Amino acid sequence: MAGIPSHINPKSKRSKRSKATPDIGQLFDQLKAGEISALSQAITLVESTAPKDHAFAKAILQRCLPLSGSSFRLGITGVPGVGKSTFIESLGKLLIGQGKKLAVLAIDPSSGISQGSILGDKTRMEELVKSDQAFIRPSPAGKTLGGVARKTREAIILCEAAGYDFIIVETVGVGQSETAVHSMTDFFLLLKLAGAGDDLQGIKRGIMEMADGIVINKADGNNQTAAKHAQREFRNALHLVPPKNQDWQTKVYTCSALEQNGIQEILDEINNYESKMRAQYSFSAKRQDQELYWLHQTIEDQLMNHFFTKTAVSEALASLEKEVLDKKITPFEAAEKLLAIGTS
Amino acid sequence: MAGIPSHINPKSKRSKRSKATPDIGQLFDQLKAGEISALSQAITLVESTAPKDHAFAKAILQRCLPLSGSSFRLGITGVPGVGKSTFIESLGKLLIGQGKKLAVLAIDPSSGISQGSILGDKTRMEELVKSDQAFIRPSPAGKTLGGVARKTREAIILCEAAGYDFIIVETVGVGQSETAVHSMTDFFLLLKLAGAGDDLQGIKRGIMEMADGIVINKADGNNQTAAKHAQREFRNALHLVPPKNQDWQTKVYTCSALEQNGIQEILDEINNYESKMRAQYSFSAKRQDQELYWLHQTIEDQLMNHFFTKTAVSEALASLEKEVLDKKITPFEAAEKLLAIGTS
Repeated sequence: MAGIPSHINPKSKRSKRSKATPDIGQLFDQLKAGEISALSQAITLVESTAPKDHAFAKAILQRCLPLSGSSFRLGITGVPGVGKSTFIESLGKLLIGQGKKLAVLAIDPSSGISQGSILGDKTRMEELVKSDQAFIRPSPAGKTLGGVARKTREAIILCEAAGYDFIIVETVGVGQSETAVHSMTDFFLLLKLAGAGDDLQGIKRGIMEMADGIVINKADGNNQTAAKHAQREFRNALHLVPPKNQDWQTKVYTCSALEQNGIQEILDEINNYESKMRAQYSFSAKRQDQELYWLHQTIEDQLMNHFFTKTAVSEALASLEKEVLDKKITPFEAAEKLLAIGTS
Repeated sequence: MAGIPSHINPKSKRSKRSKATPDIGQLFDQLKAGEISALSQAITLVESTAPKDHAFAKAILQRCLPLSGSSFRLGITGVPGVGKSTFIESLGKLLIGQGKKLAVLAIDPSSGISQGSILGDKTRMEELVKSDQAFIRPSPAGKTLGGVARKTREAIILCEAAGYDFIIVETVGVGQSETAVHSMTDFFLLLKLAGAGDDLQGIKRGIMEMADGIVINKADGNNQTAAKHAQREFRNALHLVPPKNQDWQTKVYTCSALEQNGIQEILDEINNYESKMRAQYSFSAKRQDQELYWLHQTIEDQLMNHFFTKTAVSEALASLEKEVLDKKITPFEAAEKLLAIGTS
């Protein structure tokens, strides 16, 4: 991690924080004033699994919450190698040039305890890393997507309170992480590569119907014809899935993040989306739906997790599943038996 | 309901059954012997919400369960007007002609307590209604999709024990009913109509990725060109969604159920699918996955339902949701508060 500024190195923050009990009032003031070290420390508190940090995390969130909500939140997904970091660097430079303060967060549940597998390669975001208008934070660690998603969502609140008005949340799309990012952002962008005849291979089920925009990246050099072809294929495909929003038709763009070509057009599209949605109040309606989604999703996750980690349930589960597969009882009866065991 | 045989009129069964306590041993023997009235009575027991019937329902299911599983289960979905009844009549005649015993069940959670809105119009299935090789049962009543789906799934067990070796489960696709039918059948068929330029309008999100086969119905008279066009459109579209099964490419057929054209080809396709899947053991693997899906889904439904119907939870929910939307607490904190209320 040599040469990486401390504000994108959670380890250095963590060791610093552990030396003292945080003064939440002071931390909040510093965060609100836009101090990167305070924001970083607050996110570390939110990410912490140490019970002693929970009250601090809650307190700082409580103060930041009323200041949150004013940014534009952009979700970006794409497989490794699609050029997400270069794209974010390229888009980020434009945003900063327009006077925006940009925060880049990530969700990568696969990173597990080895924090920072995503966004780890900062060499592709050199200019953003150097800019004091950009804040870059690796994916939080966590064993479950729910936990990781919660931490990222709370980090959004903290970033917004610190004055960041454009938030990018990126994911490599492991498990259901795309759904999580989709449910915490205003605009969901799918990055794709043109390939040799297999432009649409490997696309995840349902992902096209989630996208508000699709970008064929690396449309440069010898790759331009293939990129245009992929663009046509995707356009045709989009006519065949129902629009996710009756007021918005998902468009397909090509760009070269490397050559900084076509990025402005994508940003214009995103701005266009924001204006249109804000004008008809569906922008805030979508955000409200997302808030309630997380409320209900958290309850569901917790209830299921609480139930299935009970010793009696986990002991009975395997044999009841076997009885079901052996046609000794119906799945409904097995469920009833397990429920009786788990709720007694 | 005048003129409709008693075996498709649940009301007549219900009044008959209420006169006496069922003798489960006798009922099972009659059902196993293929007596339609016994099957009908057993399904009525399974559908009954009267607590006194629960033990009987469980007992008859228990006996039938080991005899279940030997049929082919075909799911059919399509909007009202697509010609599902005529298609089922047409396909059903072929099946019966091949010596099959056919049961037609339905899931329509919208029918609520007014049982039988789906499959209500038996005039389009005149021949099946008359045949003693076919058993037709309207959608069970119920307030929740979970409850309706459970009853239909249990009816499948009873039909199989009664010797029906081809089961059709149809739905109009209200709410998540397509997912329910998809999760209880071996092959999922989507019926569509060709239209004037809007062949793919109104198609539900995700439904194309669920289909094992797609049929453009009413390809007759002046409609044939449009049907062929829709067929091409769907074929193109299918290349752009990932295959649901790497060993099976979903195909698109045209047919005229009215003129009995193209139906045999669809049946051949279904038989082809069955042979292929059985040969590589993925047929039974899919069934096992479905069993476990229902086990887990039932637990989830029950846990959520149990939680949200608690008085304290339902009283607190609205105000906590309001606090979330007013940015007074995060959705995660609201979830924790509700969980504390509901699990204390």
